[in-house]
Amino acid sequence: MNLDIAVLSGDGIGPEVTKQAIKTLKAVGEVYNHTFTFKEAPVGAIAIDQTGDPLPEKTLQLCLDSDAVLFGAIGHPKYDNDPSAKVRPEQGLLKLRKSLGLFTNIRPIKAFPTLIEKSPLKEERILGTDLTIYRELTGGIYFGEKKLNKEGSVASDLCEYSDYEIERIAHLAFKAARTRRKKLTLVDKANVLETSRLWRKVVTNIGKSYADVELDFLFVDNAAMQMILNPSQFDVILTENMFGDIISDEGSVIGGSIGLLASASVGDENAMFEPIHGSFPQATGKNIANPIASILSAAMLLEHFKLFEEAKAINKAVEKALEMNVVTPDIDADSKKTTSEVGNFIADYI
Amino acid sequence: MNLDIAVLSGDGIGPEVTKQAIKTLKAVGEVYNHTFTFKEAPVGAIAIDQTGDPLPEKTLQLCLDSDAVLFGAIGHPKYDNDPSAKVRPEQGLLKLRKSLGLFTNIRPIKAFPTLIEKSPLKEERILGTDLTIYRELTGGIYFGEKKLNKEGSVASDLCEYSDYEIERIAHLAFKAARTRRKKLTLVDKANVLETSRLWRKVVTNIGKSYADVELDFLFVDNAAMQMILNPSQFDVILTENMFGDIISDEGSVIGGSIGLLASASVGDENAMFEPIHGSFPQATGKNIANPIASILSAAMLLEHFKLFEEAKAINKAVEKALEMNVVTPDIDADSKKTTSEVGNFIADYI
Ligand SMILES: CC(C)[C@H](C(=O)O)[C@@H](O)C(=O)O
Ligand SMILES: CC(C)[C@H](C(=O)O)[C@@H](O)C(=O)O
Repeated sequence: MNLDIAVLSGDGIGPEVTKQAIKTLKAVGEVYNHTFTFKEAPVGAIAIDQTGDPLPEKTLQLCLDSDAVLFGAIGHPKYDNDPSAKVRPEQGLLKLRKSLGLFTNIRPIKAFPTLIEKSPLKEERILGTDLTIYRELTGGIYFGEKKLNKEGSVASDLCEYSDYEIERIAHLAFKAARTRRKKLTLVDKANVLETSRLWRKVVTNIGKSYADVELDFLFVDNAAMQMILNPSQFDVILTENMFGDIISDEGSVIGGSIGLLASASVGDENAMFEPIHGSFPQATGKNIANPIASILSAAMLLEHFKLFEEAKAINKAVEKALEMNVVTPDIDADSKKTTSEVGNFIADYI
Repeated sequence: MNLDIAVLSGDGIGPEVTKQAIKTLKAVGEVYNHTFTFKEAPVGAIAIDQTGDPLPEKTLQLCLDSDAVLFGAIGHPKYDNDPSAKVRPEQGLLKLRKSLGLFTNIRPIKAFPTLIEKSPLKEERILGTDLTIYRELTGGIYFGEKKLNKEGSVASDLCEYSDYEIERIAHLAFKAARTRRKKLTLVDKANVLETSRLWRKVVTNIGKSYADVELDFLFVDNAAMQMILNPSQFDVILTENMFGDIISDEGSVIGGSIGLLASASVGDENAMFEPIHGSFPQATGKNIANPIASILSAAMLLEHFKLFEEAKAINKAVEKALEMNVVTPDIDADSKKTTSEVGNFIADYI
């Protein structure tokens, strides 16, 4: 298979970890006889520095022309304390999601047995956790009309959803549940929000075509509790943009390391793969950042193109690295392995 | 002191636990020479059954005429699967908050030493946790305009805030921080929402008059992680309505038992006190529900009227009950103590 991959490694540790993902994909390409072509473009704070725009037109065009996007991380401390700055790195990310039509964000969360002791939760609570969150990514309060009156004294954000926006992600989530434990939980706030009631109605209707999948509902406040009390009860969680942002970050701490979690953002024509961790500015350039989340994002990229065996090869190599303790200091403080050493081990193992 | 207290014990276990809180307040009244008068009125599912209205006019009037409201719980399974039902118990609660002007919800969260083993979190994570959440309760997306188009295919909810709504709760939160560890964390999503940017601006300005309080900011997704990773870092958390709903329920599991958590909802003229747990229909009438959250809500009521010594007497009695294992089965499965036995022990101890 030939794949043109746009590489948007972004800020902070983004470039370092993405490099290891590319190394890994190249190894896969050699072994399995695929041609992966990589083209880089700036995004985020670094793009603002270079062009004044967090998502330069050229970068967007490259993404549109590619088969997939490999994304690193964005964000720089100089923007952190000023969320009202005119130009911010996050705008690049939001515009990218919208322009590429990436309406579904997929985040698998698993408790890696070797890492259970690092989890803030007790072992008996997390054993067996293996869930996937389907978060709507291009609608809701993120993209609704924003207003601020002239005096700067009244602000508003509109949360809006149409049945169509709900249907397309619901189908993806039900299909995923079918290949898993056949359970789908819709997280909403239907006792308060009109949009949530629409979500329930539409998802209930679509559920009828997936009669083999058990559908249930959870209010978001209760979901925030259940995610800690008993995360193994979940299989596929489906939810809207804002709730998904909160619940998926909450869920990301269960496994013991956010440095291992990958995500895919997919639409009808484009797909982007990224680690869920941020740009971690304090670690930039030190060769200590954990590349595994980025490498597992590359595995999700391969799965997206139905290269399941190849994806499995990456997953196996990662498990081996964890098993043999070839890990960066965030996983084992005594381990002296660097970002590139971990990347090399995984690429070589493949 | 004379206090007229409206009792809205509501549905499920509401009446059983509220009875113990009243018993406790009566004991306090006798010992400290106060006259507490209690008048009951229906709210929630039971009010719908009786009158068709989850908040009958008479109930609201009683609350307006009283010095404080003691609230039990609302909700009944027959409404759970139909969030789009025309009349729902929750509407009564939301209307009550709005009509009484209860713009601030206060939820203290503590790790009780005797209960640490029941927490889903590891002991080292929760030791020292002692935080209070100030959640805005009468604004934001809960009360903004809701729309559904004629075809039922597009829905929206408006999240709106004015500087005034933010100022009044911010002052309460800063004042609370002053009496505590002098740290205030604003939880928002200022990198995406216009309303959050207004919150940051207004709270930053008000912070200047509380120079002794350290103010910091956290995006809500990060807050959802930090609440589990390191809850003891928080002192006072200030946030808007929807985020507060999620974050405070998430935080409620830290301590190991939701059956111990109380809350106060206050405004300029009225105040309401309630356990944070729900109506727990499965336990209704069995005399097994934990009355401590309701009893601690009574303690918050006393604090509200500056009866600090009296409140302390309740808190001490509760600690004693926990210490001597005079608890319902949710705290200790081997304990055979009933709801009323726990209430009697606490009232007698006072
Ligand atoms: C950076 C921010 C705008 C973004 C979001 O809220 O979607 C991030 O938190 C995420 O989840 O990818
Ligand atoms: C019942 C519901 C409307 C309510 C809310 O969301 O405010 C509840 O969850 C709460 O937190 O008191």
